[in-house]
Amino acid sequence: MPTDDHASKQATALEAVLAERFGTAVPVSPQLQGLDELTRIASHRVHRRFLARAVEPELLRLLCACALSAPSKSDLQQADILIVRDKAKQRAIAALITDMPWIADAPAFLVFLADGRRVPHIARARGKPFPNDHLDLFFNAAVDSALVLATFLRAAAAVGLGCCPISAIRDHAQTISDMLALPERIVPVAGLCVGWPAEAGRITPRLGLEATVHEDRFGTGDLDQQLEAYDRRRDAQLPYRRQRAPERWGQAALYGWSEDKARQYAEPLRTDFGAFVRAKGFRLD
Amino acid sequence: MPTDDHASKQATALEAVLAERFGTAVPVSPQLQGLDELTRIASHRVHRRFLARAVEPELLRLLCACALSAPSKSDLQQADILIVRDKAKQRAIAALITDMPWIADAPAFLVFLADGRRVPHIARARGKPFPNDHLDLFFNAAVDSALVLATFLRAAAAVGLGCCPISAIRDHAQTISDMLALPERIVPVAGLCVGWPAEAGRITPRLGLEATVHEDRFGTGDLDQQLEAYDRRRDAQLPYRRQRAPERWGQAALYGWSEDKARQYAEPLRTDFGAFVRAKGFRLD
Repeated sequence: MPTDDHASKQATALEAVLAERFGTAVPVSPQLQGLDELTRIASHRVHRRFLARAVEPELLRLLCACALSAPSKSDLQQADILIVRDKAKQRAIAALITDMPWIADAPAFLVFLADGRRVPHIARARGKPFPNDHLDLFFNAAVDSALVLATFLRAAAAVGLGCCPISAIRDHAQTISDMLALPERIVPVAGLCVGWPAEAGRITPRLGLEATVHEDRFGTGDLDQQLEAYDRRRDAQLPYRRQRAPERWGQAALYGWSEDKARQYAEPLRTDFGAFVRAKGFRLD
Repeated sequence: MPTDDHASKQATALEAVLAERFGTAVPVSPQLQGLDELTRIASHRVHRRFLARAVEPELLRLLCACALSAPSKSDLQQADILIVRDKAKQRAIAALITDMPWIADAPAFLVFLADGRRVPHIARARGKPFPNDHLDLFFNAAVDSALVLATFLRAAAAVGLGCCPISAIRDHAQTISDMLALPERIVPVAGLCVGWPAEAGRITPRLGLEATVHEDRFGTGDLDQQLEAYDRRRDAQLPYRRQRAPERWGQAALYGWSEDKARQYAEPLRTDFGAFVRAKGFRLD
């Protein structure tokens, strides 16, 4: 058992992480068990630079098994993991996404898949009708895949690995799908770079909890005020190193999160994703 | 540092959990750090029966903060958590879902939300166009919400709490939306019962890793064979207590996972979910 003194220090350390993350005091009782694990969860950070040290196949398999122990909507198990072992294939994926060189450099690269194939297959195999070929099938598969991805991230962090999710693989969904020979009703949700971190990484400040945690009814707070406070906090703590598309939007005096995200999504992104998903055999009615 | 002997025992214990889960040997090196956390992840189980002991509001808030530290697609932060504190509201939700009495009994009840509202709001507020009002917006919000849900589950398990996700709230999406005053483009992904577990719970066997973990290309294994092996393993380890809808399908000699899921999805479920999502303002093109 940890000493009381040790527990107090752990609680204080977690409070400091949460203050950095959310800009507000979140009290932590030293009596809680699992404070070290909570601190790892709250300290989540993205890792894009890795040591030149392999991630053993046995370890990847263990982490996949842990990840696939995540809960699954109605026990339907609509998620798969694809490990890209072939370095030529990994480089080919990296070549599609030129602004993320860490994809080629990552010691290991995985793709998390939404699987809407098994459930209709089972219906046919067991001689049952399947009157559920609509949005729910796709939604459940995407959510299951995300549950597995998040659980993989926790397992990887537990052993000391760093990760960087790559949702940009969906910018090239059809090409990725062809490269990985994805059957009908299997679509990629995100890639994942995995490796031993070369640096500590930074905690990204998040929207204040008043914007994202609600009680009994969706919050009636002033979203614009919340965004402005967050933009200022974030600029003070972790300012953006460069402004996006200054040739189009100029230089903003305060370049906060909302300006960055507004600029990012001012360009059409993945406008063909719906067509891809439908071409893969999902109905989204 | 743990002794070598202690680490060996931890590795063996994790191997036993994974063998129970996947029916196959997943070797675990005693040299790994974080074996206790990996074991908790691999030991995930659903809890539906809780002690008559409150979950303190401060603890819930701490767990929400940990959960919202999860990664977010492009840092867009498209997830919210709604804590249902009003017991009358919790009972009203439970009354909609008559076959899950644990919803009313849970010491705490949360709803995880997909938030496709903030990003278009930001575009307007920052005077930018938003040419991304298509499937991607909904998909990203659903995935973000699931990442937060899975991370909440890890944080809850770390402090010793048990949880039961309730996706059935989407069977009543409009009613739930009205009860929680969800604005345009905010949709529920899952509810969550939270409490101090009254029993240990059981590990649910999962599909074999040969069905869900692939290398370089989507597996070309025989899905029917994999399903049959899983049905037999599951029946041996954790047989279903009752067969679903015997009046329609009779009594199966071997009632495995695939028969149960085929029967479950032989009934129309959430056929109105797409209409609900569209009525909430999402375009799914």
